[in-house]
Amino acid sequence: MKQISGSQSIVFQNAPYIVSAASVVGAKETQGPLGKLFDICAEDNLFGAQTWEEAESTMQKEACILAIGKARVRAEEIRYLYGGDLLRQGIATSMGVEALQIPMFGLYGACSTSGEALALSAMSAAAGYGKYMLAVTSSHFGSAEKEFRFPLGYASQRPLSAHWTVTGSGAFLVKAAEEPDAAGGGAETLSASEKPAAEPDEGDAATSQMSHVRIAGVTVGKIVDYGLKDSQNMGACMAPAAMDTIVRNFLDMGRTEEDYDRIITGDLGYVGQSILFDLVRGQGYDIRKKHLDCGMTIFDRETQDTHAGGSGCGCAAVTLASFILPKVESGEWKRVLFVPTGALMSTVSYNEGASVPGIAHGIVLEHR
Amino acid sequence: MKQISGSQSIVFQNAPYIVSAASVVGAKETQGPLGKLFDICAEDNLFGAQTWEEAESTMQKEACILAIGKARVRAEEIRYLYGGDLLRQGIATSMGVEALQIPMFGLYGACSTSGEALALSAMSAAAGYGKYMLAVTSSHFGSAEKEFRFPLGYASQRPLSAHWTVTGSGAFLVKAAEEPDAAGGGAETLSASEKPAAEPDEGDAATSQMSHVRIAGVTVGKIVDYGLKDSQNMGACMAPAAMDTIVRNFLDMGRTEEDYDRIITGDLGYVGQSILFDLVRGQGYDIRKKHLDCGMTIFDRETQDTHAGGSGCGCAAVTLASFILPKVESGEWKRVLFVPTGALMSTVSYNEGASVPGIAHGIVLEHR
Repeated sequence: MKQISGSQSIVFQNAPYIVSAASVVGAKETQGPLGKLFDICAEDNLFGAQTWEEAESTMQKEACILAIGKARVRAEEIRYLYGGDLLRQGIATSMGVEALQIPMFGLYGACSTSGEALALSAMSAAAGYGKYMLAVTSSHFGSAEKEFRFPLGYASQRPLSAHWTVTGSGAFLVKAAEEPDAAGGGAETLSASEKPAAEPDEGDAATSQMSHVRIAGVTVGKIVDYGLKDSQNMGACMAPAAMDTIVRNFLDMGRTEEDYDRIITGDLGYVGQSILFDLVRGQGYDIRKKHLDCGMTIFDRETQDTHAGGSGCGCAAVTLASFILPKVESGEWKRVLFVPTGALMSTVSYNEGASVPGIAHGIVLEHR
Repeated sequence: MKQISGSQSIVFQNAPYIVSAASVVGAKETQGPLGKLFDICAEDNLFGAQTWEEAESTMQKEACILAIGKARVRAEEIRYLYGGDLLRQGIATSMGVEALQIPMFGLYGACSTSGEALALSAMSAAAGYGKYMLAVTSSHFGSAEKEFRFPLGYASQRPLSAHWTVTGSGAFLVKAAEEPDAAGGGAETLSASEKPAAEPDEGDAATSQMSHVRIAGVTVGKIVDYGLKDSQNMGACMAPAAMDTIVRNFLDMGRTEEDYDRIITGDLGYVGQSILFDLVRGQGYDIRKKHLDCGMTIFDRETQDTHAGGSGCGCAAVTLASFILPKVESGEWKRVLFVPTGALMSTVSYNEGASVPGIAHGIVLEHR
């Protein structure tokens, strides 16, 4: 049913597909280079809510509902939801997805959470645990500044190595491959609520549903700690983890940078990217011609004053939903290594002098 | 390979086994009714560390190392680690498991996290994604009071409906079933680092390794919100989620309370238990003769002044490791439904007036 090719990676023999994705963003993201590609853009960042946290939950809920709607699936048909965010006790996710009433696994992988959620969704779908899985993450500039730094009202200054947390949520519907399990097994009795949804009209399918993006494999990251302690320089803290996961993916799958059309990190930003290039070169690879970073893609460096680039769970998620997946769906990119990166810290660990280790999960997206 | 019998549950055809478990606890837990059953008991609650958070990480690390050691497995042989804790951004887990260098998925399910970690470990092992998976959770009275209520130095008073967070960490090594996949598939190429460990001596196997406890199935919980807002009465907040998961387990698997030797919730406590009984009776079942609660089991109500009972990720985890699993291993209990329960809240959500919904995950443990 699947082949395990190395110590951290899985290659799915019957790879599941991402059949729909949705992106919900705030005002600043709307003004950025990807602005026209997002599904829902807020005029302010409150989404009709009273607090930043409630606004973030609203984004998650809207992203989930939209992703489900695009695929013409009902929430009851989704077996499990995998979701997380940056806030303490993952409260944006708990409050955001509650109304969907999908059995759920709460995750925390800092800004790598979109990779973690997609990996687990793909693993569950490929294993035959259900036809549909939903992966969702979010971040919000207002709630993240309050959580990790200072409330916005303090108007505190930030160094040039700091990132700008993206206000956004991305949701992804993962569907098990329809061909019978290669092994012939996987007996599955569907309950009454799981009858397949009506086939979509061909007419609007192209604009909303996808049928060519498969999650071919995953490389699950380890915690990588180079001892850095500067929470205002997340790019440097996360670059070693990105390197570790990218190189591990190459080794596990017998590949090099030549086998990918793009290698796309989550939110290393300008500082982290240059460190990543150096670290990867030290391992004998050169990914400079293949590399993109969502944090550098989502904002315009010259005009948007976002310093080292965008960050947050939402950064990689909405860039994947709006910018990366359409290119894989169209076949412009045949194979992409998507590597969201997370910095593992809290205000408590920072104040107690702990280092800021990183983690990164690799998702292999293929056009088929 | 596995049969999906209902909308939230999985029954594994080749069920994985829990082959070892370890419990590390603090001083108060050592003095409680289960004191003699734990593996490592601290004289103080700092475990040689400088802070409560670092102490909690140390507990997790020790629990993992001990569980791995009991099974005579090397950390490199463990494919994935699933872990989480109560602290903001799951920092006890990040710092705790870092040294093991196992590819990891960070989780957040409040006090239900042990169930979440065991479910995902079992799902991954049953799917053939690796031979060994490690599940770990922890909580610490000092770090939890600081995180959710007041630093211990304030000596604040608590209502009788409040719980006492258990200082403890439990780790569980889950091993894929050795019989060939019923479907005949699951091609797996092991890398050099994955050679099977030497067979354990028969002599001490009985005292440390287990060979009769299988995870027969899981019921993944939904978020259940009855609108309660009292974070000092977690039992009431979590009881509806426990009911929902227990009844869903019955329906999905075609069972009643008669099919289980014990139904064991995580930390409902005295208040939550009575609510659970009422709610379950409303659904047509009576679990009173089968029910235990880890939070009521781990402390002595009369002498330990722990009010509604123990709580925290560590409460269910160390009770499972020290008290429940040996009874399943010996065959005293043939089938147990283990249902850790979590209250989804943060100080921010509480201060903003949000309700405290619950979630509970069901793990079916069988003697075989």
